Amino acid sequence: MRKKGITLGVMGLVAAGSLFAQEWGWSESLDMIWLFLGAALVFIMQAGFAMVETGLTRAKNATNIVMKNLMDFCIGAIVYWAIGWGFMYGTNGDVPGVFIGLSDFFKNPMDDPVYHRDWFFQVVFAATSATIVSGSMAERTQFKSYLIYTAFISALIYPISGHWIWGGGWLSDLGFHDFAGSTVVHSVGGWAGLVGAAVVGPRLGKYVKGEGGHISVKAFPGHSMPLAMLGVFLLWFGWYGFNGASTLSGSSPDIARVCVTTTLAAAAGTIGALFTSWIWFKKPDASMSMNGALAGLVSITAPCGVVSPAASIIIGLLGGILVVLSVEFIDKTLKIDDPVGASSVHLVCGIWGTLAVGIWGNVEGTAVGLLHSGGFAQLGVQALGIVTVGVWAFGTSLILFNIIKAITGLRVTAREEQQGLDISEHKADGYAGFQIFSNM
Amino acid sequence: MRKKGITLGVMGLVAAGSLFAQEWGWSESLDMIWLFLGAALVFIMQAGFAMVETGLTRAKNATNIVMKNLMDFCIGAIVYWAIGWGFMYGTNGDVPGVFIGLSDFFKNPMDDPVYHRDWFFQVVFAATSATIVSGSMAERTQFKSYLIYTAFISALIYPISGHWIWGGGWLSDLGFHDFAGSTVVHSVGGWAGLVGAAVVGPRLGKYVKGEGGHISVKAFPGHSMPLAMLGVFLLWFGWYGFNGASTLSGSSPDIARVCVTTTLAAAAGTIGALFTSWIWFKKPDASMSMNGALAGLVSITAPCGVVSPAASIIIGLLGGILVVLSVEFIDKTLKIDDPVGASSVHLVCGIWGTLAVGIWGNVEGTAVGLLHSGGFAQLGVQALGIVTVGVWAFGTSLILFNIIKAITGLRVTAREEQQGLDISEHKADGYAGFQIFSNM
Amino acid sequence: MRKKGITLGVMGLVAAGSLFAQEWGWSESLDMIWLFLGAALVFIMQAGFAMVETGLTRAKNATNIVMKNLMDFCIGAIVYWAIGWGFMYGTNGDVPGVFIGLSDFFKNPMDDPVYHRDWFFQVVFAATSATIVSGSMAERTQFKSYLIYTAFISALIYPISGHWIWGGGWLSDLGFHDFAGSTVVHSVGGWAGLVGAAVVGPRLGKYVKGEGGHISVKAFPGHSMPLAMLGVFLLWFGWYGFNGASTLSGSSPDIARVCVTTTLAAAAGTIGALFTSWIWFKKPDASMSMNGALAGLVSITAPCGVVSPAASIIIGLLGGILVVLSVEFIDKTLKIDDPVGASSVHLVCGIWGTLAVGIWGNVEGTAVGLLHSGGFAQLGVQALGIVTVGVWAFGTSLILFNIIKAITGLRVTAREEQQGLDISEHKADGYAGFQIFSNM
Repeated sequence: MRKKGITLGVMGLVAAGSLFAQEWGWSESLDMIWLFLGAALVFIMQAGFAMVETGLTRAKNATNIVMKNLMDFCIGAIVYWAIGWGFMYGTNGDVPGVFIGLSDFFKNPMDDPVYHRDWFFQVVFAATSATIVSGSMAERTQFKSYLIYTAFISALIYPISGHWIWGGGWLSDLGFHDFAGSTVVHSVGGWAGLVGAAVVGPRLGKYVKGEGGHISVKAFPGHSMPLAMLGVFLLWFGWYGFNGASTLSGSSPDIARVCVTTTLAAAAGTIGALFTSWIWFKKPDASMSMNGALAGLVSITAPCGVVSPAASIIIGLLGGILVVLSVEFIDKTLKIDDPVGASSVHLVCGIWGTLAVGIWGNVEGTAVGLLHSGGFAQLGVQALGIVTVGVWAFGTSLILFNIIKAITGLRVTAREEQQGLDISEHKADGYAGFQIFSNM
Repeated sequence: MRKKGITLGVMGLVAAGSLFAQEWGWSESLDMIWLFLGAALVFIMQAGFAMVETGLTRAKNATNIVMKNLMDFCIGAIVYWAIGWGFMYGTNGDVPGVFIGLSDFFKNPMDDPVYHRDWFFQVVFAATSATIVSGSMAERTQFKSYLIYTAFISALIYPISGHWIWGGGWLSDLGFHDFAGSTVVHSVGGWAGLVGAAVVGPRLGKYVKGEGGHISVKAFPGHSMPLAMLGVFLLWFGWYGFNGASTLSGSSPDIARVCVTTTLAAAAGTIGALFTSWIWFKKPDASMSMNGALAGLVSITAPCGVVSPAASIIIGLLGGILVVLSVEFIDKTLKIDDPVGASSVHLVCGIWGTLAVGIWGNVEGTAVGLLHSGGFAQLGVQALGIVTVGVWAFGTSLILFNIIKAITGLRVTAREEQQGLDISEHKADGYAGFQIFSNM
Repeated sequence: MRKKGITLGVMGLVAAGSLFAQEWGWSESLDMIWLFLGAALVFIMQAGFAMVETGLTRAKNATNIVMKNLMDFCIGAIVYWAIGWGFMYGTNGDVPGVFIGLSDFFKNPMDDPVYHRDWFFQVVFAATSATIVSGSMAERTQFKSYLIYTAFISALIYPISGHWIWGGGWLSDLGFHDFAGSTVVHSVGGWAGLVGAAVVGPRLGKYVKGEGGHISVKAFPGHSMPLAMLGVFLLWFGWYGFNGASTLSGSSPDIARVCVTTTLAAAAGTIGALFTSWIWFKKPDASMSMNGALAGLVSITAPCGVVSPAASIIIGLLGGILVVLSVEFIDKTLKIDDPVGASSVHLVCGIWGTLAVGIWGNVEGTAVGLLHSGGFAQLGVQALGIVTVGVWAFGTSLILFNIIKAITGLRVTAREEQQGLDISEHKADGYAGFQIFSNM
C-alpha cells in the first residue's frame, strides 16, 4: 500500500540491504533530500533563463529562444551523463587527475545512490552554464548550430575546467575557492556567450554606420517585461538551491549564512543597477534592474559561504553597478551584440564574485580575504583561476564556434532574421493571433 | 517567540505528547517534510498544465482554460477529501478491499499526522489525473459540464482504479508495479480525455469535408509558445516531486535513482520528439518537442524506481518518438480532436511506461523485466493492469460524459465557440487591450 | 572535491567546531532545511504577486507593476536586515520588549546559524506584507514614492506590530494566536494598501459623475488572465512554505495538519467566490475566483495549525464569499479604487482568519474556540489584536502616505497616467511590438 510511508521507509532501508543499511542514517538521508531538492530548484532556473531571454528579445523570436533553452538542457543532460561526468569527476587510476578526469563515462549503475545523487546535482549546474549562451546569441543564430555548440560545452568545455576546481584538479589543490560556481559555471557560460556573440556578429540594424562614419547603436526593446521579470524571480528562487545546496551537506550550519548572503547580495545588486541606470539614463530602467538582480546573484555565488551579511551587500551592490557599466561597454564600445546582457551578468560579475572571495573571504574559520588578513595570497589564487579558466573557455569556444561556422554555418540568412526565427526556423508563430508590428 | 525555532521544535515534540513522542523520530520527521515538499512540487504541476494548455490553444479561450485548471483542483480537493480518499485508501472492515475501499469518508481528525500527510500527498496526484482532461476537451466544452465531470473523476473514477494498485487491491496483490502513476494517474486522465474529446466532438473547422469527400485537417496554432514552454518547465520541475517523493520515504536511497532516470528520460523524450518531427515535418517542431518532454516524463513515471540510467534513456526516447506518431494518428486517422495532444502524452505514454517495467524492471533487487529475466510474467501483469484500468476508465468516462451530455449538454453553441469561451462563458477577455485577429 | 557530499557533511560538522558540533544534530539540521526551503517557497510568492497584479491591470502599466514588486523585496530586504529585524526581534536588555525590540540593528555575524536562518525565514514574510500594497495603488502611483513607502513599512510599520505578536510582545503575552500571519502579515499589508489607495485617489475615469449626480463605476479589465492565474498558482504553491514552515520545526507532526487545512481552505475559498460571482453577476468570474483562492489562503493563515479539515473548509468557503462582497463594497460603496482587490483579500480575509481562531481553534490540545469551548475569551483576544494592529497600521500608513504626498508627491500626472506608467516612469514599453488598443 502506497500510503504507508513510514513502514515503507523502514523497509526501503532494509531492502537496500548490505550496501547501505549501516551507513545510511539520518545524515546521509538528509544530504540526499537536500541535494535532490537543491537540484530541483536549480532545474527551475532553466525556466527562469527561458523567460528572461524571451522577455528581453523580440516577439518574432520567442519560440526559437525557448526551444534553445529546452534543448540545451536535454542535450546537455544526455552528453553530461555519457561524457561530461567522466571528464569532470572521473579519476586517473585511483586518484583525481590534475587536468582531467578519465573514467566513469556512460556510467550505468543500478544501485549507487551516491553517484546518482551527485550526478543529478551536477547536471543542473552543467546545464546552467550551457544555457547562458542562448541569450548572448539570440535572434540570429541557426538552431541546429546551437544544438551542436551545446553538446560540446556540456561534454567538454564545462567539465574540464570544472574538474580543475570541483573535481579535485590543480586549482582546488592550490586553494582556489568557488563555493557555488561564479567561475566554474557562470564565467564559463559567459565567455562562451561573449565569443559566440562576437563570432556570429550583431543583429541586422544593430550598429549602423551613418554619415561621417559615425556608428549609431540601436536598442531592440524586449517584447514582454512581465515574462522577463517572472524569469528573474524564478532564477532568484532557483539560486537558493544553486548556492544553498552547494554546502553539499544537509546538516551543515553554513546553509544559513548562504541564504542570507544570497538574499542580500541580490537585493543590493538590484538596487545598485536601478540607481546607476536612474542617474545615468534618467530613468529607473527595468531591464537593467533585472540584470542587477542577476548580477548580485552571480557575484555572491563564489563567496556566498565565506562572507558576512554586510560584505554580501557590498559585493552585490558593486556587482549591480558593474553590470550596467559592462552592458554599456560591451554594447557601445566593444560593439558586441549581446541582446540580453548575458556576458555582463555571468562573465563580468562571475569574475567579480570570484575576486571577492580574495577580498572578504573567511574560509573554514581562516580569514583569507585581503581586507581581513592583509594578504594577497588568496586574491592571487583567485585571479589565477579566473585567468586560466578564462583562457580555456575563451579559447575552446573560439575554436568551436569557428568550426561550426565553417562547417554548418552559424547564422541564419538576413531574410530569415528579418522574418524572425520562429517562422524561419520552426515554421511556428510564437504568438499566433496577436497583431504585432511588422518592423519588430 | 516565533523565531526560536530550535526551542519550539523540541517543544512541539513534547506537546505532541503521548501519541507521537516516542515514534516520531528523525525518520518520521524526514518522511513528513519529504512528502510535504514532494506534494508541493506536484501542486505546481497545476500551473504547468494551465500554462501548457493555454499556450497551445487560442487566445480567445485563454481565461476559460486556466479557469478549468483552477477549478478542477479545487473541486477535486474537496471531493477527494469527502469521498475519493475513502474509495481509494479506505478498508473493508480491517483489510483493504480487493476492488474498493469503503471507510474514512469525510474523515476529519484533529490529530492524525500520518493521515494528514498522506492525504496531502495523494490529493495532488488525484488532481493531476483530473486536469489532463481540460486540455483534450479545450475550446468547446461548457464550463459547468466540465465542473461536473471533474467532481466524478476525483470522487469515483480515479480512486477506485487507484485502489486496485496503490490502495492494496487486487492488482497490487498480483504484483503490478506502477511506481509513481503512469497507469494510476496518467492513463486514467488520458482515457477520460480521449473519451471526452470524442464525445464532445471536434472544434468547428477542424475537419472539413472538401470536394470528393476528402477531409482536410486544420491545425489551430497555440497563442503563446513562451507560456507553453514555461508550463513544460513547471511540469518537469513538479515531476521531481511526483516521481521522487513516490519513494514515500525521505530516507530511501532509491530517491537518487529516481531523479536520474526522470531527468534522462525527459531529456531523451524531448530529443526523440524533436528529431522525429524534424525528419517528418522538415522542421524542429516546438509543440511536438514540448510534448516529447512530457512524453518522456510520463513514460518514466511507472519504471523510474526500477530501471538503470541507460534504460531510462531508451524508455524516454521511445516515448518521445511514440508521442509524435500518436498525435498524428489520433488527429489524422482517428479524427479525434485533442487540441494539446494530452491523450497521446498521458494515455499512450502512460501505457508505454507501464509496459517498460515489464521489459527493463528490477524490482527490489529482483530482475522482473523481460530483457533481464527472460520471462514474460511481469509484462503480463503490467498488460493486465493496463487493460483492466483502461476498461474501467474508458467505460466510466463514456457513461459519465454521455450522461452529462444528455442532461446539461456538454458543448457550447457554435456561436459561442466562434466568439471564444472567454467572452461566452466568463464574459471576460483573456487579453484585454491586445489586438487579436478576429478569425483566431 | 565537491561531489563528495557525505564526507564534506561530516567535515562540515567538525569544522563548525566548538560552537555547534554538540548541539547540531538531526533535529537542528532538519529545522534548518525546513526553514530554508519554506523561506524559498515564500520568496516565490513575490513572483506570484507580480503576475497576479500585472495580469489584473492594464498592459500599459505592466513594467511598472513588476518593477514595484521587484523593488519592494530588494529595498525591504536591506532595511529589514538593517533596522526591521531589530525592532521586531530585538530585546530591551535581556528580555523582549512589550512594545518594541531595540537591539540587533545592522547585525552582522559571520557565524550565527540560528540568526541567519531565522532572518531568512522572517525577511520573506516582511516582504510579503510590503508587496501587497503595490496592487492596491497600481496604475497611478509614482515609482519613487512607492520606493519610499516600501522602506518605511519594512523598517517600521510591519516590524513593530509584528513584535507584539511574534517577537514576544504584549499580544503574544495575552495569548493572541496568529500561526502564520493573517494579522501580522496580511492585514498590515492590507491596511497600508487600503489607506494608500484612498490617499492616492482613484484612477482617472474610474468614478464618473453623470447627469443628476449619479456616479458610474467603471471596471478596467486586466490584460492577461493567464499571467494572473499563473500568479495565483505560484502564490498557492508558496503558501505551503508560508503556512507549513511556520511550524518553525521540521520535526513537528503539525506540519501535516497545516498542509491539509491550507489546501482545503484555498479550494473552498475558490469555490465560494466562483459560485457567489456566478449567482450575483450571472457568470463564473475569473478574477473573483482567483481572489477567492487567495481569500481562502489568507483566511486559513492564522488558524491553519489549530483547526480540523472540516473547519478549514468552512473558513475558506466563507472567506471566498466574503472577498466578493468586500470587493464590491470597497469599489462601489466606499469608492476606494483598489485595482486588484488586494485590501479585500488581505485585510478583510486577514481579519476573518484571525477571528476564526477564536471560533474553531484548538491550540496545543486546548479547545479555545467558541464552538468547542463555549467561551469568548480567545475570540476577545483575537479581536483585540485585530483592532490594535489595525489602529497601528492604519494610523502609521495614513501619516506616511500623507507625508510622502506632501513632500515628493504620491501620484503621477493625468497625462502620465493616460500614457501609462511604463512609458512615463520607465521609458520602456511592457509589450514592445504588440498592438494594443490606445484607450487601454
